[in-house]
Amino acid sequence: MGIPTGATVVYDDGTEETFEDVSLAEARADEGRVEYRYAYAADLLPGEPAGETGMWRYRALLPLEEGPIHYPLPVGGTPLVAAPGLRNRLQMPHLWVKDETRGPTGSNKDRATAMVLEHAMRAGAQTVSCASTGNVAVSLAVGAAAAGLRAVIFVPEQVAESKLALMRLAGATVLKVREGYDAAMRFSRRAAREFGWFDRNTGYNPATLEAKKTVAFEIWEQLGRRVPDVVVSPIGDGVTLSALAKGFRELVACGVTTGVPRIIGVQAEGCQPVKLAWERGGQVEPVEPKTIADGIAVGQPLSGAAVLRDVRDSGGAFVAVSDDAMVRAIGTLAASAGILAEPAGAAAMAGLEVALEAGLVSRDERVVVLATGTVLKNPIFPELPGAVHTVHADLDELRRALGV
Amino acid sequence: MGIPTGATVVYDDGTEETFEDVSLAEARADEGRVEYRYAYAADLLPGEPAGETGMWRYRALLPLEEGPIHYPLPVGGTPLVAAPGLRNRLQMPHLWVKDETRGPTGSNKDRATAMVLEHAMRAGAQTVSCASTGNVAVSLAVGAAAAGLRAVIFVPEQVAESKLALMRLAGATVLKVREGYDAAMRFSRRAAREFGWFDRNTGYNPATLEAKKTVAFEIWEQLGRRVPDVVVSPIGDGVTLSALAKGFRELVACGVTTGVPRIIGVQAEGCQPVKLAWERGGQVEPVEPKTIADGIAVGQPLSGAAVLRDVRDSGGAFVAVSDDAMVRAIGTLAASAGILAEPAGAAAMAGLEVALEAGLVSRDERVVVLATGTVLKNPIFPELPGAVHTVHADLDELRRALGV
Repeated sequence: MGIPTGATVVYDDGTEETFEDVSLAEARADEGRVEYRYAYAADLLPGEPAGETGMWRYRALLPLEEGPIHYPLPVGGTPLVAAPGLRNRLQMPHLWVKDETRGPTGSNKDRATAMVLEHAMRAGAQTVSCASTGNVAVSLAVGAAAAGLRAVIFVPEQVAESKLALMRLAGATVLKVREGYDAAMRFSRRAAREFGWFDRNTGYNPATLEAKKTVAFEIWEQLGRRVPDVVVSPIGDGVTLSALAKGFRELVACGVTTGVPRIIGVQAEGCQPVKLAWERGGQVEPVEPKTIADGIAVGQPLSGAAVLRDVRDSGGAFVAVSDDAMVRAIGTLAASAGILAEPAGAAAMAGLEVALEAGLVSRDERVVVLATGTVLKNPIFPELPGAVHTVHADLDELRRALGV
Repeated sequence: MGIPTGATVVYDDGTEETFEDVSLAEARADEGRVEYRYAYAADLLPGEPAGETGMWRYRALLPLEEGPIHYPLPVGGTPLVAAPGLRNRLQMPHLWVKDETRGPTGSNKDRATAMVLEHAMRAGAQTVSCASTGNVAVSLAVGAAAAGLRAVIFVPEQVAESKLALMRLAGATVLKVREGYDAAMRFSRRAAREFGWFDRNTGYNPATLEAKKTVAFEIWEQLGRRVPDVVVSPIGDGVTLSALAKGFRELVACGVTTGVPRIIGVQAEGCQPVKLAWERGGQVEPVEPKTIADGIAVGQPLSGAAVLRDVRDSGGAFVAVSDDAMVRAIGTLAASAGILAEPAGAAAMAGLEVALEAGLVSRDERVVVLATGTVLKNPIFPELPGAVHTVHADLDELRRALGV
């Protein structure tokens, strides 16, 4: 099983030679290309796929009638990464990163987009719409293109050019609203009603919460059908955290687990309305966001009250992280776990380090950190940990450069 | 199954109200957040996962002894996308795109990296190395970070800053070699021998071909255990195409299919040594690459002779595509299929249009186009198809902007 029974060397001049002894072929790797052979048989190939994959695997717990899935981009089923380097670095043997940067547009928003567009396709909609400044807009533009629908997207006039380019690349119609983001959000909802468009706005469309709760189901299944002790999640509008909490509560409701993980909610120091409400013991009051982490720069979170309750009910807590700490966490995730996250996407990683310091999490617990969005769309880099040397093709020069 | 049995509205002030009639709850979406409820039961959740997922699903046909997989980043299992918009646009009802932009670093190189690093981890290696100018280097840097290994990467002095930043972000040691890419490749192999590093160089390490052949297995399985009529693949060093051909031949060897698809090989007009050799009927002669598609700008392809034979044996053909056609194909993939590909990654899409014109492929055939790498790492954009309007939050102004 899985061991080559022989190998053919295809030499650079196009001739071939076949060896029963694989090592003899491998010794010729400088002269051509080594191709392995196996004891071929049909049973070497896996059987039929076992039903749905990705997010639709949990469709019995999604607001979706029976019938085939129409949305063509696979979403969900993102990796739960147990990176040896990261575990060593933090001395946490039971640490995982749930890598939500692996969606079609590199963000956990892709789950909500898939759910809304599946509804839109079943309803025979022609046009879908939303207001957004970033990841939601790109996700909807790309998802609509895949679904063969028109996307109408409302953005504030100061939208980032790199994200605007991706929306347009996917063929979206983009409306810059002069009055800014809050007005764009209200206006987009009004326009959707006026023109009969399908409205994707997170927080208003309950399907977005349903879609994002599948993250909890996947974590449970990927851990061998058990829940972790702690989950660390960033908070922007709060839907990501709140959906996670709902997913874990539903696992309890299904009778497959008895408790939910403690949830640590992470906000940026420059935008922490929910954490401040938690500390004051009052309601969430709006703040003016001041952070580089645009993905969580939400001064008036739609789900603020729900997040307070979800975290309290889980026995969790809130922490805030500086912009510098998020930028360092980008480096930690990349260089210790091979995960490329943007500032908001690395916020939970930064938050875990604060929570460890504060004694909110202990190093031997089973902990899952959420990485929510890719740095590739939003290239804010830390001081780069790797080294660059310029050399001639000379071994002695290389030795000096490497210090060996 | 999958239909909510009730819903709770969590109002903006934190209070809640539960409705048995879901539509009554949905009518309150403006006042708070709607949370669906289901008839919870353990059998709503899927059973245990069915063995390996992704590339390792085919490990019985990979050079890998038994035992657990150590490499922590899931690779392979990329989507085969049947985009309604793209099918309509090209009038090809049986067209799919195999979306290899969905790897950990957005490239089909991630398969080869995973295979080599699995070998390296099992061998107890400390350091892995390669020479590359782009996707291979980023893939190895990120993969090594995830595996807890050190990456030493040799690049030409003129390496793209955006890709260099990603290598360093992942903590790699990068050596700029003054003598250029070919020297960097030879020097990296020499240094790997000298220092006992694990050598990932594609073409030399046969594991890279083995890893990439799993694309063929996945296409076959995703099409319901049958092979398509035609597969369209870009050609850089040729390993991607050659591995695809080997994968399909192995399906025949396993007795699960009787024929292989015709393979259309696509090169850039500014770098088409294999296509020229095909037309001349001779050997592959080196050329000086002149194309924006850095991923396939290989003037002296390592697997050129193998590619000629693979395409001939499949009954396929070669086409060349202009830089402009690749840039247009980026737009086609994004706006009709929701797939974000770089120029080399969109080359096969451009090649399909040329092959249709030339009568090499007919529109009713079952055709799979390979998209090999993401545009997010390499943002070369076409004339953007989407529209941008700037408006006040005013419905009449919006109507004028949209022309409705």
